[in-house]
Amino acid sequence: MDDILKLVQAGSLSIEEAKKALATYEDLGFAKVDHHRQKRQGFPEIIYGEGKSVEQIIAILEAIKAKQNDVLITRISEEKASKVLEVHPEFIYHQVAEILYWKTEQKHVDESDSFIAVLCAGTSDLRVAEEAAITAEVLGSNVKRFYDVGVAGIHRLLDHAEEIQKASVSVVVAGMEGALPSVVGGLVSHPVIAVPTSVGYGANFHGLSALLTMLNSCASGISVVNIDNGFGGAYSAVLIDQLARNKK
Amino acid sequence: MDDILKLVQAGSLSIEEAKKALATYEDLGFAKVDHHRQKRQGFPEIIYGEGKSVEQIIAILEAIKAKQNDVLITRISEEKASKVLEVHPEFIYHQVAEILYWKTEQKHVDESDSFIAVLCAGTSDLRVAEEAAITAEVLGSNVKRFYDVGVAGIHRLLDHAEEIQKASVSVVVAGMEGALPSVVGGLVSHPVIAVPTSVGYGANFHGLSALLTMLNSCASGISVVNIDNGFGGAYSAVLIDQLARNKK
Amino acid sequence: MDDILKLVQAGSLSIEEAKKALATYEDLGFAKVDHHRQKRQGFPEIIYGEGKSVEQIIAILEAIKAKQNDVLITRISEEKASKVLEVHPEFIYHQVAEILYWKTEQKHVDESDSFIAVLCAGTSDLRVAEEAAITAEVLGSNVKRFYDVGVAGIHRLLDHAEEIQKASVSVVVAGMEGALPSVVGGLVSHPVIAVPTSVGYGANFHGLSALLTMLNSCASGISVVNIDNGFGGAYSAVLIDQLARNKK
Amino acid sequence: MDDILKLVQAGSLSIEEAKKALATYEDLGFAKVDHHRQKRQGFPEIIYGEGKSVEQIIAILEAIKAKQNDVLITRISEEKASKVLEVHPEFIYHQVAEILYWKTEQKHVDESDSFIAVLCAGTSDLRVAEEAAITAEVLGSNVKRFYDVGVAGIHRLLDHAEEIQKASVSVVVAGMEGALPSVVGGLVSHPVIAVPTSVGYGANFHGLSALLTMLNSCASGISVVNIDNGFGGAYSAVLIDQLARNKK
Amino acid sequence: MDDILKLVQAGSLSIEEAKKALATYEDLGFAKVDHHRQKRQGFPEIIYGEGKSVEQIIAILEAIKAKQNDVLITRISEEKASKVLEVHPEFIYHQVAEILYWKTEQKHVDESDSFIAVLCAGTSDLRVAEEAAITAEVLGSNVKRFYDVGVAGIHRLLDHAEEIQKASVSVVVAGMEGALPSVVGGLVSHPVIAVPTSVGYGANFHGLSALLTMLNSCASGISVVNIDNGFGGAYSAVLIDQLARNKK
Amino acid sequence: MDDILKLVQAGSLSIEEAKKALATYEDLGFAKVDHHRQKRQGFPEIIYGEGKSVEQIIAILEAIKAKQNDVLITRISEEKASKVLEVHPEFIYHQVAEILYWKTEQKHVDESDSFIAVLCAGTSDLRVAEEAAITAEVLGSNVKRFYDVGVAGIHRLLDHAEEIQKASVSVVVAGMEGALPSVVGGLVSHPVIAVPTSVGYGANFHGLSALLTMLNSCASGISVVNIDNGFGGAYSAVLIDQLARNKK
Amino acid sequence: MDDILKLVQAGSLSIEEAKKALATYEDLGFAKVDHHRQKRQGFPEIIYGEGKSVEQIIAILEAIKAKQNDVLITRISEEKASKVLEVHPEFIYHQVAEILYWKTEQKHVDESDSFIAVLCAGTSDLRVAEEAAITAEVLGSNVKRFYDVGVAGIHRLLDHAEEIQKASVSVVVAGMEGALPSVVGGLVSHPVIAVPTSVGYGANFHGLSALLTMLNSCASGISVVNIDNGFGGAYSAVLIDQLARNKK
Amino acid sequence: MDDILKLVQAGSLSIEEAKKALATYEDLGFAKVDHHRQKRQGFPEIIYGEGKSVEQIIAILEAIKAKQNDVLITRISEEKASKVLEVHPEFIYHQVAEILYWKTEQKHVDESDSFIAVLCAGTSDLRVAEEAAITAEVLGSNVKRFYDVGVAGIHRLLDHAEEIQKASVSVVVAGMEGALPSVVGGLVSHPVIAVPTSVGYGANFHGLSALLTMLNSCASGISVVNIDNGFGGAYSAVLIDQLARNKK
Repeated sequence: MDDILKLVQAGSLSIEEAKKALATYEDLGFAKVDHHRQKRQGFPEIIYGEGKSVEQIIAILEAIKAKQNDVLITRISEEKASKVLEVHPEFIYHQVAEILYWKTEQKHVDESDSFIAVLCAGTSDLRVAEEAAITAEVLGSNVKRFYDVGVAGIHRLLDHAEEIQKASVSVVVAGMEGALPSVVGGLVSHPVIAVPTSVGYGANFHGLSALLTMLNSCASGISVVNIDNGFGGAYSAVLIDQLARNKK
Repeated sequence: MDDILKLVQAGSLSIEEAKKALATYEDLGFAKVDHHRQKRQGFPEIIYGEGKSVEQIIAILEAIKAKQNDVLITRISEEKASKVLEVHPEFIYHQVAEILYWKTEQKHVDESDSFIAVLCAGTSDLRVAEEAAITAEVLGSNVKRFYDVGVAGIHRLLDHAEEIQKASVSVVVAGMEGALPSVVGGLVSHPVIAVPTSVGYGANFHGLSALLTMLNSCASGISVVNIDNGFGGAYSAVLIDQLARNKK
Repeated sequence: MDDILKLVQAGSLSIEEAKKALATYEDLGFAKVDHHRQKRQGFPEIIYGEGKSVEQIIAILEAIKAKQNDVLITRISEEKASKVLEVHPEFIYHQVAEILYWKTEQKHVDESDSFIAVLCAGTSDLRVAEEAAITAEVLGSNVKRFYDVGVAGIHRLLDHAEEIQKASVSVVVAGMEGALPSVVGGLVSHPVIAVPTSVGYGANFHGLSALLTMLNSCASGISVVNIDNGFGGAYSAVLIDQLARNKK
Repeated sequence: MDDILKLVQAGSLSIEEAKKALATYEDLGFAKVDHHRQKRQGFPEIIYGEGKSVEQIIAILEAIKAKQNDVLITRISEEKASKVLEVHPEFIYHQVAEILYWKTEQKHVDESDSFIAVLCAGTSDLRVAEEAAITAEVLGSNVKRFYDVGVAGIHRLLDHAEEIQKASVSVVVAGMEGALPSVVGGLVSHPVIAVPTSVGYGANFHGLSALLTMLNSCASGISVVNIDNGFGGAYSAVLIDQLARNKK
Repeated sequence: MDDILKLVQAGSLSIEEAKKALATYEDLGFAKVDHHRQKRQGFPEIIYGEGKSVEQIIAILEAIKAKQNDVLITRISEEKASKVLEVHPEFIYHQVAEILYWKTEQKHVDESDSFIAVLCAGTSDLRVAEEAAITAEVLGSNVKRFYDVGVAGIHRLLDHAEEIQKASVSVVVAGMEGALPSVVGGLVSHPVIAVPTSVGYGANFHGLSALLTMLNSCASGISVVNIDNGFGGAYSAVLIDQLARNKK
Repeated sequence: MDDILKLVQAGSLSIEEAKKALATYEDLGFAKVDHHRQKRQGFPEIIYGEGKSVEQIIAILEAIKAKQNDVLITRISEEKASKVLEVHPEFIYHQVAEILYWKTEQKHVDESDSFIAVLCAGTSDLRVAEEAAITAEVLGSNVKRFYDVGVAGIHRLLDHAEEIQKASVSVVVAGMEGALPSVVGGLVSHPVIAVPTSVGYGANFHGLSALLTMLNSCASGISVVNIDNGFGGAYSAVLIDQLARNKK
Repeated sequence: MDDILKLVQAGSLSIEEAKKALATYEDLGFAKVDHHRQKRQGFPEIIYGEGKSVEQIIAILEAIKAKQNDVLITRISEEKASKVLEVHPEFIYHQVAEILYWKTEQKHVDESDSFIAVLCAGTSDLRVAEEAAITAEVLGSNVKRFYDVGVAGIHRLLDHAEEIQKASVSVVVAGMEGALPSVVGGLVSHPVIAVPTSVGYGANFHGLSALLTMLNSCASGISVVNIDNGFGGAYSAVLIDQLARNKK
Repeated sequence: MDDILKLVQAGSLSIEEAKKALATYEDLGFAKVDHHRQKRQGFPEIIYGEGKSVEQIIAILEAIKAKQNDVLITRISEEKASKVLEVHPEFIYHQVAEILYWKTEQKHVDESDSFIAVLCAGTSDLRVAEEAAITAEVLGSNVKRFYDVGVAGIHRLLDHAEEIQKASVSVVVAGMEGALPSVVGGLVSHPVIAVPTSVGYGANFHGLSALLTMLNSCASGISVVNIDNGFGGAYSAVLIDQLARNKK
């Protein structure tokens, strides 16, 4: 801002141009899209697919592609995705994660680099866990998956403890009683992002039980995102993993 | 009932006496005390101490002792208990458990017999865990304690897994996220009684978090009692342990 | 563990073999199945059917049958079950309980042995009560059913009190106000497992009302499982009943 | 209103007088007291004592007595009441019910007339039960008390069933799981007013558990008042009992 | 019970016959039907139609008609009812109330007798209000309807105040904010049964808002039934109205 | 009222006529319609469309049009609206707002006059925001829309701050975390009406999260209406805007 | 902002000065005080007194008075206020409202001008109602009070309807069932600000009952502030009243 | 573990010694302390002070100091802390943060290194914000504080946006509506840890309002810890900051 004001002071920048330079988003009429943030971090544009029609999604996709940006669409059903793929067969769809995306060029992943551990408690948590894993990969991180390692059979988790400890950050997905993040938090020295899922029934209350468990964890280093928010968990994890990646 | 009706039919029993024979409790005016159930099981009379004055407690104690029954008082503060002990020094008080009791004769405990495992997650759960442990002992069961074995340091629990597996039933006490019963449930083959505690803060909601966790446990063989109800957990456990004891 | 370490020390066991010996589950890729626990207790493998496709269920069934294990599938609709039965007509389906199972050989049940009493308050609670009863029978216990004995017509319950008292453990299923376990708890001397159901409307809140009632019961010896969790109630009851059965 | 309008039309009533005739309350400045309703039914004026100072209470009492009306004060602690009694020793205070009242003349109660049954589940519910019983008596009804008849010892209730059935209406007070009204509702043919109390702990949530139980009762003929509202339960019961009394 | 015991004592009654005489219900296998209570009060048998198939309903209807009893079925959709009417055209169906019933003979209603006032706040509350009104009529009471008299247009209610005051009891049905019972409670001297409905949206929480409003009413003489429970409100009201009717 | 009484006194008005003069609504049998209030303010009659059939809606429309009144129908789906439009093509339907209306004559809007600012946080809040905006316009106010100005991209809002500050009142619509009204409240000097929406998932609890956020706002001058109640927000705003309009 | 940028461009304003000119608050180290907003509207500085020590309050007061600003302190107990008054006897304290304030000069109030109607349902709501009334007066509006006009005695309200209708805006304070705003909303044509109070007990849940009632009101033109937030209700009302005042 | 097994195989390690080598904690009888984790990360031992007596705290402190470890005690009141300081004057106490700690040697902090931004919305959030800030500093991170930057005066935050963006991670503390993390999340490119506080009243529900707001944030990169858990927020932040620090 100092720079822009100095340019204005020097007369090198007109007031209109100064205003445009400070603008951080594009006004598309029905929506105001912020291109800056994503670009700064090399992230694709992100669209929340639920509640949008196929036509709306295609329109937005094309607008973004016109700007040579990558795109990540979350919560898009197989039915909708297949209609988008008819028009844009270059997109990739992950059925379990319900994610559709397109990347201009594949970032070269250095296998020796840092990685995010994505864990889930049971097979019913797979959709959310995969939403987290695919999101993290599309955003440029390495991911290792540790699935079906719930606390009721603790040895399934302990057998992978050593490998999990090597991650830069863990995303731990669990429904029902949601106890897995507490156990993981006690085993590792890196940050843990806990993602409660709505899996369960009865006094589960659509994920409230797992959410409260995670917020009340007696282990340190755990923070929590919204119920079923695999995308949000991955986004926070990638921001953390970038700190680890960059140092090498 | 058949027998009593036959005696009435035979004229051996008056109608008044038949009525009395069917009575299962004593009406003390302000309270109706059921002597039968406890006696059947060799249990002491049980009094919930909270909200009763020292005078009321002493009056009830003396009424019960007059009938040569044992007595167990739960939730009685040290201050109240010391006043009772001035009058009845033969009573025994457990400070942590806040239990006061008196037994006519100490049942001979066979150390080789079955036992109840009482576990707690953290030192803050001690009051409830000791309420469970002392209750179980006064009701006639052997107890082994496994304290401060919460899931955030899972090896503390695993080191005692072999010993815990030998119990006839486990009473597992935990506050905060309440995840311990799920892990224990996956390690043992006997019934687990889970006791949530109100230990914690913030989104703990006075034990609701731990309660929901336990009800939603993905491990089988777990049932739950009310928040902070160490007495109730022990009572259920002793009924189960009696089945194991009797068979030897 | 001592034994395995001694064998390693003696050179009789390679390190790889020592690792395998400690493994307690089989990793099937998308799931990690624990064969040990069920086998130890003579229980079948248990599958939660809700949310699984017919194809998935058949695949899992065949994997388990290949190992000569019994199988119990809960929460499987009649529609799905009939498709499984086309391929595996040797399975048995209980329509009310929504349970599908197969046992290698029928355990001989000694009628004179201990039994589990399964009670329910109203006819709307039948699905959950039958889930409990069938589960208990498939897991090897005797069961006696006492249905439609809700507290609003208390004599319906009292007429069976004597018979219920002979059980080793009661599973008490109730929706709406959920008061039945309290009354049963006052009538019997054995443990009571209370199962709240989501039956009701208005301020019932999908079973929350019955759940709270049961957790707050003024009768001792009652513990509670999740709303509609007939399977879980039966599992705990069978573990208790085994203690009674073994002693004879 | 027709009458008053006709008098105005006839000129027999001035507009000012017409207005006064329609006024149904007296404006005391800081409060607007409605004398009509209570008078119509022979009820005393009723004051909710909680949160009022001794000075305020005395001021209001004297204003009412000046009009020769009876007074009933609920929720007034012993400490406050004793200060009022120093000034007005003619008042009567019920310590358990925390009620202070004064009646100009004792209504002659015909013992052969109808009566209200007041039941409570446990001795901890006594304060609320007595608030109901004393209120009903001061308002002019006969009351019979059936205390400590909770469902965990069902025979304590059944022994009085025949007597309870003779009442015109029952007020049933219960805390903890609140199951008593359901059982009573199944035994009697008259209306039942259920009063949940905040007695209990843990997942009781200050009476919410008992309240939900009563609203979800499977027995017909039960309606519910607010938690701990013994006064409200009695008021409804007296309105009902008046219908029964008047007919004789 | 005294009488029966005396007969047994005198030898006039066998033990088997004594048992049968005390039986208060008939065991139909899958259900235990209590014929006594309804008969005592001249009420029809009552069936909750929701969740029952047409076949089940017809089977139950015919069993009851065989005993010459009247029948009232609540919560039965028009589709189901029309199928029942094909087989039993003598039944009467109320479309708004979703009630189907049959009475052996129409009780002669004396127009000069007492009546129940059924009020509702808005036209959206009609289904519940009519469930209450029709139930009360089938159970033998006179009913007067006062609909669409919600508090946001207070004069609509006040214009009928005089007529409402003549009722023996009011059933007041309201959704959204549920304020109507408080205003009615302040206008009348008879008991008010408040019925909250689930009508509304947003922070209405399926009727919880109206339920809490009614429980917290500052007017005396109001008691509350479950959300949308028009039947329950009417049942309590009829029990009260019977006291008024009988006296004349 | 004084006037009417004087006329009665003077004999110029019969009692029947006096009654009619005081009547403030028309009784249509199944509904009591209040014509006065709307007319006083030049507002159309308002109908809540949800849960009403096309036939019912047309019947009501025609009744109102017969009285030369304007009509505004909220929450009416496109399917229903198109059927109404077949019969009454003079009506105007707003698809996003789900509003159908008819005005006898278009009020002349003075562009230089005061206006209501309608803001929404995201595009998912559009339905509620448009319900507010169209309602306000049909009720006679000028409206300026500021959409997709949520707090996660704060500059999108700040760029319009100057324009928003000129409004007489703001209606701020937001789902998810509902933070927008707090920020707006800190930027403007006029009243803010906050409208929470049910947009979101997980721990959003159908709009409860946004509702609580708005009620707890640390900014002054904010008041809140029910979840998704765009109509209600606009109605309050128009009443406020009228004060500003009238003064010019 | 255009102006400032032009001055910078013209060299008339240094960059440092430009920054200062845009600053809208003063940074006092531990707090950042915004002087602009209040000044713009002629409002005093406002301090929330709860949780602040007497020393802190005096320090803040003196800082503000040094700038010749008025001050309004809410939620300050009589004990704290008397200590402040010892040092600053020029302040005025309202005991019921718990408000302490100081105004440099009393704004001349034109009695013929617009006014705010402050209503409350019962005498227990007085503290919140007076917080609203005093706040409104100190902020410069005329206020008329209508207290103890709850809906259980509807005529107390109706007698003042004509006067209330003349207000520019109503602030309606009510606890318990919170029904008063709905009735008022139906009587007036101006905006209504509803303030729920935590007055009540049992299922009142600290004001939640009244809050939900008000949010669900079936009357239009009502918006709601937080529980017990008399200040907030008044602040919104004054912003509205200013629109009415200015026009005259 | 491979290494230890090899040593056992080679006979270089006895079985007892192998067991000890695997032990990860010290059993102090009433507590099992894990020394390993903290040591690995250079963190002090952490004690939760609430509910512990001065004697208990001193005993634990001395045990830890004997092992040359640093200590951090959270939630310790000034009264308790001053008693500890009498015995151990080398400890440092932070009054606002309620933290007492001791470090063997001060880690050299490189001012040019990465830092954690700690923000809070209002001065009432200071205790929690300082708990976070001091914790982070004692754990070895640089901290910059941005206090009283709540969203109701958005410019207070924007003026510091540039500086905040330079942090490696932000800890954002807010009570009341809890909107600050959403705005910060939109301004920065690093991870945000949101800490809700229980500051507020009415429908704040002890921090639930702020908690839900943060979980539902529409900004990406935000994860949440428990209400008032400043320590937990800082712990997660330090784990993240270490990744940034180490890389330099």
